[in-house]
Amino acid sequence: MKDMRIAIDGMGGDNAPQAVVDGVIKAINEYSDLEFYITGPEEIIKEELHKQNYEGDKITVVNATEVISNNEHPARAIKRKKDSSLCKALELVKEKTCDAVISAGSTGAFLTGCTLIVGRIKGVKRPALTPIMPGKNGPFMIVDAGANVDCKPEYLVQFAYMGKEYYKGVLKGENPSIGLVNIGSEEEKGNDLTKNTHKLLKEEENLNFIGNIEPRDITTGNTNVLVCDGFVGNTILKMYEGTASTVLKIIVEEMLSSGAKAKIGAFLLKPVFKSIKKKFDYKEYGGAPFLGVDGICIKAHGSSDGKAIKNAIRQSKEFHDNKVLDKIKEQLELKSE
Amino acid sequence: MKDMRIAIDGMGGDNAPQAVVDGVIKAINEYSDLEFYITGPEEIIKEELHKQNYEGDKITVVNATEVISNNEHPARAIKRKKDSSLCKALELVKEKTCDAVISAGSTGAFLTGCTLIVGRIKGVKRPALTPIMPGKNGPFMIVDAGANVDCKPEYLVQFAYMGKEYYKGVLKGENPSIGLVNIGSEEEKGNDLTKNTHKLLKEEENLNFIGNIEPRDITTGNTNVLVCDGFVGNTILKMYEGTASTVLKIIVEEMLSSGAKAKIGAFLLKPVFKSIKKKFDYKEYGGAPFLGVDGICIKAHGSSDGKAIKNAIRQSKEFHDNKVLDKIKEQLELKSE
Repeated sequence: MKDMRIAIDGMGGDNAPQAVVDGVIKAINEYSDLEFYITGPEEIIKEELHKQNYEGDKITVVNATEVISNNEHPARAIKRKKDSSLCKALELVKEKTCDAVISAGSTGAFLTGCTLIVGRIKGVKRPALTPIMPGKNGPFMIVDAGANVDCKPEYLVQFAYMGKEYYKGVLKGENPSIGLVNIGSEEEKGNDLTKNTHKLLKEEENLNFIGNIEPRDITTGNTNVLVCDGFVGNTILKMYEGTASTVLKIIVEEMLSSGAKAKIGAFLLKPVFKSIKKKFDYKEYGGAPFLGVDGICIKAHGSSDGKAIKNAIRQSKEFHDNKVLDKIKEQLELKSE
Repeated sequence: MKDMRIAIDGMGGDNAPQAVVDGVIKAINEYSDLEFYITGPEEIIKEELHKQNYEGDKITVVNATEVISNNEHPARAIKRKKDSSLCKALELVKEKTCDAVISAGSTGAFLTGCTLIVGRIKGVKRPALTPIMPGKNGPFMIVDAGANVDCKPEYLVQFAYMGKEYYKGVLKGENPSIGLVNIGSEEEKGNDLTKNTHKLLKEEENLNFIGNIEPRDITTGNTNVLVCDGFVGNTILKMYEGTASTVLKIIVEEMLSSGAKAKIGAFLLKPVFKSIKKKFDYKEYGGAPFLGVDGICIKAHGSSDGKAIKNAIRQSKEFHDNKVLDKIKEQLELKSE
């Protein structure tokens, strides 16, 4: 089989290009069937490769003189900065030089760029950003987590199909359960969007739709794929991060302000807290795929280190090897027939 | 000054009537200027009063033969069960026998009942459920947390004014900061509702509007009053509860499955975990006022015990003593002039 080729935005993310190059080298050492195209100012990327002592032939540096920052207007940046590391990486997928693209840069620019340059799968109404998150009893996915703030019921039905195929292919679960995020478990609860979406999802025989899921129960991880509009999905994502961080901070504060006994207790529990931190570590899960575009497009976390980049690469490899893109197309075609 | 009179749904909540009667007696022992009207089947309430050895003259039992459960359709239940403990309690406020009403029963029935029986303040477009929640650096309020799932920008502006007056009167903070829940900090971020609400809030000179607040930052408690539609507010409320509970459960599981050292550590930290649990205890904060109705209407948590009921009573007393209702009316009138 031919090697899989991955385009990676060499200048995307808080720790670029160091973390990007580090992650790519880690992946090359782990997988023998991957090739990389790193985009960015040639000298800077080559210097980094040199610094990290890479001398193999699995990496091509693609020169790109511009960089898109987090503060730029996404659509404007994509249209104007054709020679940016992000646009160049997206072009590599569009022209089929590469099978996948990964960026840890601006989320807005990445989503806009994927839609404008890579393009949507025929029939997909709205692509969706789909982070995988750690739940108590297993990982779960949110579709959509921020790409589409105003949604129609039909979009959410497509989100469910795309999420299902991604879960099956990458998280390796047969017949994943699909839940509709709602503020009540009963069918008639919710806003116009959820009430109408519930009706549609109930009719879908090819989905393991288990009904409404209240946000209180999301983090157990008992439901595999959660569909909602991007405003609600992004709220869930950020409440999860914010609350987990607040709770852990309060625990540390309380321990430090308590007596000597508590301090000894905290010391003895250090390995436990370390393992908990690992459980909540987004780096373990790689990035968030942007489902519905006609290519494998993975958004890595802005603060990704080498390990997170490597995991995003592993994720794009699973996406590719398990033909998730073809399966999404099949499902959506079947549905529209 | 005349005693304040409080109507309380004797049969509302998982622990009624025991918890209700317990809470009322606790409040009578603490505050000398309160009188109570407990609604419910006369014999049952009187038996409970007898069980708890109450013999004073501050409590009137108002007979009500029906009970509204959580499983009933709210509007239907309010219309059909005129002789329910909830409807009777609401009627006492409507006819001005009482100054406030408290119920730990069905939230849906309570909100519908307050709107239909007590009625809205003139000029209020939508009343809002407003829980007070514990943040890392102080309590914060969510307006609306579930009463209005589909909102218009004008509703949210009123939510901000009502939240402001409640915060000032009951949580005792001058010039509370008002934040708009949004998925980005920049003005142009968000969905149609938040973009248009942002524009309106910016123009309000009598509000200390500090801009968009991302859900990640809500639980710090640095912003006093957060406005959003009821779907998003309810999601925030339930994600907060769910995530805090998940994180604490994972910690306990990890501690128990780790070695002896971790178990000793956990033992030594017991008082710390107890104090954290208290920090997250809704019982400390009483209930959630339903702001915008023409009376003091407090929804206590369904699983309230006597202490939670007593705190909801304290809350309605502060609401009353600080004339929050009048101040809300003044603010909204000023605004509509």
